[in-house]
Amino acid sequence: MAAERVFLNEVALRDGLQSEAVFVPTEAKIRLADRLSAVGLAKLEVTSFVSPKAIPALRDAAEVLAGIGRRPGVVYAALVPNEKGAERALASGCDEINLVMSIGEAHNLANMRMTCEQSLNQFARIMALVAGTPLRVTGSVATAFGCPFEGGQSLQRIFWAVERYLGLGFHAITLADTVGMAHPRLVAEVCSQFLRSFPGVPLTLHFHDTRGMGLANVMAALDAGARSFDASLGGIGGCPYAPGATGNISTEDAVHMLEACGADTGVDLDSLLAVARDLPGLIGHGVPGRILAAGKRTDLRPRPA
Amino acid sequence: MAAERVFLNEVALRDGLQSEAVFVPTEAKIRLADRLSAVGLAKLEVTSFVSPKAIPALRDAAEVLAGIGRRPGVVYAALVPNEKGAERALASGCDEINLVMSIGEAHNLANMRMTCEQSLNQFARIMALVAGTPLRVTGSVATAFGCPFEGGQSLQRIFWAVERYLGLGFHAITLADTVGMAHPRLVAEVCSQFLRSFPGVPLTLHFHDTRGMGLANVMAALDAGARSFDASLGGIGGCPYAPGATGNISTEDAVHMLEACGADTGVDLDSLLAVARDLPGLIGHGVPGRILAAGKRTDLRPRPA
Repeated sequence: MAAERVFLNEVALRDGLQSEAVFVPTEAKIRLADRLSAVGLAKLEVTSFVSPKAIPALRDAAEVLAGIGRRPGVVYAALVPNEKGAERALASGCDEINLVMSIGEAHNLANMRMTCEQSLNQFARIMALVAGTPLRVTGSVATAFGCPFEGGQSLQRIFWAVERYLGLGFHAITLADTVGMAHPRLVAEVCSQFLRSFPGVPLTLHFHDTRGMGLANVMAALDAGARSFDASLGGIGGCPYAPGATGNISTEDAVHMLEACGADTGVDLDSLLAVARDLPGLIGHGVPGRILAAGKRTDLRPRPA
Repeated sequence: MAAERVFLNEVALRDGLQSEAVFVPTEAKIRLADRLSAVGLAKLEVTSFVSPKAIPALRDAAEVLAGIGRRPGVVYAALVPNEKGAERALASGCDEINLVMSIGEAHNLANMRMTCEQSLNQFARIMALVAGTPLRVTGSVATAFGCPFEGGQSLQRIFWAVERYLGLGFHAITLADTVGMAHPRLVAEVCSQFLRSFPGVPLTLHFHDTRGMGLANVMAALDAGARSFDASLGGIGGCPYAPGATGNISTEDAVHMLEACGADTGVDLDSLLAVARDLPGLIGHGVPGRILAAGKRTDLRPRPA
């Protein structure tokens, strides 16, 4: 039986670095992106075309995208929070933009400073801007598995957002567990219902490991039929407006588990780990990823004499 | 539909404290055991009747067992590494003893200083000692999901140990991922084959979170039909002879996930968290458990003004 092909979108350069206090120099970001694109990852979310005042850590978005080497077969994506960002993304020549709305109204207000309807209206204007260009558009349903202010979200509310996104012409959907509230049974239910309700619509899951369930949620999504995941090198990241949200799932931990479970991520784990090992030096502190600390399960030790 | 009943065996007092540099005072251990027995846990592995020279942290095994209040319905267990330990356990009046052999020969030699056949011979002598007493005996198959020196273990090798254990009259089996090498697909395979091959034999899974897959492995075992798990308050513990093994799965993180997933652990999570909060003070350092740090998924935050 052929291994299940699983696609990974590396978000450390965006979701990871946006939360860091230090400014990682542009050249170092470019080198990190180029090293990551060489290990077999399907997609890199390279940066965010957010206001440099809002997130100074990513103020060099255009320079980073201009500086990286484009590896054929790798998708280069960027987060876009508004029309200005969409214009900058178009000029940058990235392959894909990621538009984000929290379905929890209170979280969307806190995070994006807009109501959900205002977000959707802005998305419509962005779609008009990018119409006729080759730019692909992913819509992220943030707080899909729970809002820190409102609690759990209904399947109806999640699917309301998905339908609005598809109505706007978005090409793919990411369901994001922005503050780490998902659990495996919820993930299984949401993913299986999504795949049944929206056949053919590319689905990505974005999990955080806030409450230790990150990889359990990946397995639940995989078992439900999902085949695409966001992950962050070293497990860095977390939404700056979501207090208590600590860390995306670690890319190397996800690859390690998925490959052990017989999936084909396309990623060379040893090469990825070599990149991950240099991450603490870039950001000035240790990272939560476990394989970096413990080694792979196949790293045997010499027998005691 | 009634919730699945899942049974948790709290091992922090044994597997956790045996790895700690500090000696937790006997009175503090007794108080910890009494608080843990009050929150709804099915079983406590209270201590180990190991040589006080080998593990000074547990040199007060008999005093702890003599000092705790026995709560009806809670099983009080102790690890027993040899005949001397079995005699001490019998005198202590604990309900159950846990006998351990690694199925990796090299690990058994390093950990127990015996070959597997020597371990099994000793188990036979211990069974003769406890024959006719009400003491129940659990056999732990250590390194069942992989040995740090030999690598993966075959299902045949795991079941060889289980059959030898059952032949000796053991009442229950624990399959232990001693150094954190299990992954969800392996767990699913081993658990489902176990339940098919040994119907009616009580099975417990003992997972470590060394490589971030601890809770994913719990879900895989649950889905395969397993209903009993070891876990350690705060996620402390790890085999002192297994380099790199960092932490059992955290009891409170396991309860949090299992209850979210609709299982009934019998544990009051808030009461358990209150006990867990005092653990760093007892052992002098922070613990890896995630819910202590992040809060429960149902702990909502006030809406921003």
